[in-house]
Amino acid sequence: MSDLGGATAAGPPELARVRRKPERAAGDRAELDAVLDAMLIGTLSTVVDGWPWAVPLLYARVGDGIVLHGSTGAGALRHGAAGAPACFTVARLDAMVVADTLFDHSANYRSAVVRGRLEPLEGEEHREALLAMTERLLPGRAAEVVDMTAKELAATRSLRLPITEGGWTVKARTGSAGEPSTDAGAWRGVVPLREQWADPEPAPGQDPTVPVPASVAALVGRRR
Amino acid sequence: MSDLGGATAAGPPELARVRRKPERAAGDRAELDAVLDAMLIGTLSTVVDGWPWAVPLLYARVGDGIVLHGSTGAGALRHGAAGAPACFTVARLDAMVVADTLFDHSANYRSAVVRGRLEPLEGEEHREALLAMTERLLPGRAAEVVDMTAKELAATRSLRLPITEGGWTVKARTGSAGEPSTDAGAWRGVVPLREQWADPEPAPGQDPTVPVPASVAALVGRRR
Repeated sequence: MSDLGGATAAGPPELARVRRKPERAAGDRAELDAVLDAMLIGTLSTVVDGWPWAVPLLYARVGDGIVLHGSTGAGALRHGAAGAPACFTVARLDAMVVADTLFDHSANYRSAVVRGRLEPLEGEEHREALLAMTERLLPGRAAEVVDMTAKELAATRSLRLPITEGGWTVKARTGSAGEPSTDAGAWRGVVPLREQWADPEPAPGQDPTVPVPASVAALVGRRR
Repeated sequence: MSDLGGATAAGPPELARVRRKPERAAGDRAELDAVLDAMLIGTLSTVVDGWPWAVPLLYARVGDGIVLHGSTGAGALRHGAAGAPACFTVARLDAMVVADTLFDHSANYRSAVVRGRLEPLEGEEHREALLAMTERLLPGRAAEVVDMTAKELAATRSLRLPITEGGWTVKARTGSAGEPSTDAGAWRGVVPLREQWADPEPAPGQDPTVPVPASVAALVGRRR
């Protein structure tokens, strides 16, 4: 992480200056956790040679941290050196907000940004991080299948981005369109964007007598 | 953009070194456009005081650029100075890939990262950018409602991130689980995650005799 030395030593410099619109901000930690736990994929941003570097990653919030994993070597986490300044962003578009003037159109969304210094996880912490992520992505699956081998654990790495006071922000817009801006009487409202797990599709060659596992069955039909 | 001077002058340093797994990478521009055009929200990353700074934003691809907009002043684009090194990331989880060992579990996804220097848009370009974004988010709506005023245009700003050769990468994983890693016979397959526009919900107080506009009606039921 070539810019590590140049980063502000005290920590992320920006969050205290985030301007929050009252109707779009929620400041408490429970809200942050709810937003982080409602999503599965986010963007890790770091700095390389003065340029932003970003990669989309699956993640899991585990207590006061965000756990990320990837392959070793030149994988997605190669800029995640110990102590590297990083920022992890999640966002979900929940609805289009339709107004009576073009300018007043908006969107309902939830988003969170967590900033801090990355911590590599080793040994048992690495193993626990991988299990936590599996449990997050497909709850119950770990108990149904063959466990990870030492070789597999060695082929991956995990990082943790701590959630610290002042190091995060969460925003949400909910509700419908505001009051009309004109007397034209154009339709106003919202169009929700829904996400849902669909029916499982067996792999080619999958023995049809093997039932869909409980973990997969529990996922199907669930709205996100 | 305090780190502007320190950034590599020649351009984004990293993309040429992205390691592509054959089954997860697609190198052509049409694929990039398809991924960018399939999503509505992404993350803009810049650098502030050596720290990554990121904000989720709605966007539109217009030709060889990504158009972003926000309010003036201390809004989301305040670090988008002319020439600022930036990177815009989109990602969508398409399916969970269920394998017979914990380690082989994976995900189908599409993602794109575009890197370059931000260009502020002024005057007619600014106006066209806002219209393009509206048309992208809710096609046809601009023709149904009151146009933007000069005051409204002045209250927002637009930025363009050019899509240049060597300045982007697109990745996708598709298909089902791979061959079994064990003889245990555990179920393998995928669980698709679908996104769909739901029925429109009128705003409180909306005159019920006003029909749902054609633009909204065209959106509903559409899968994303």
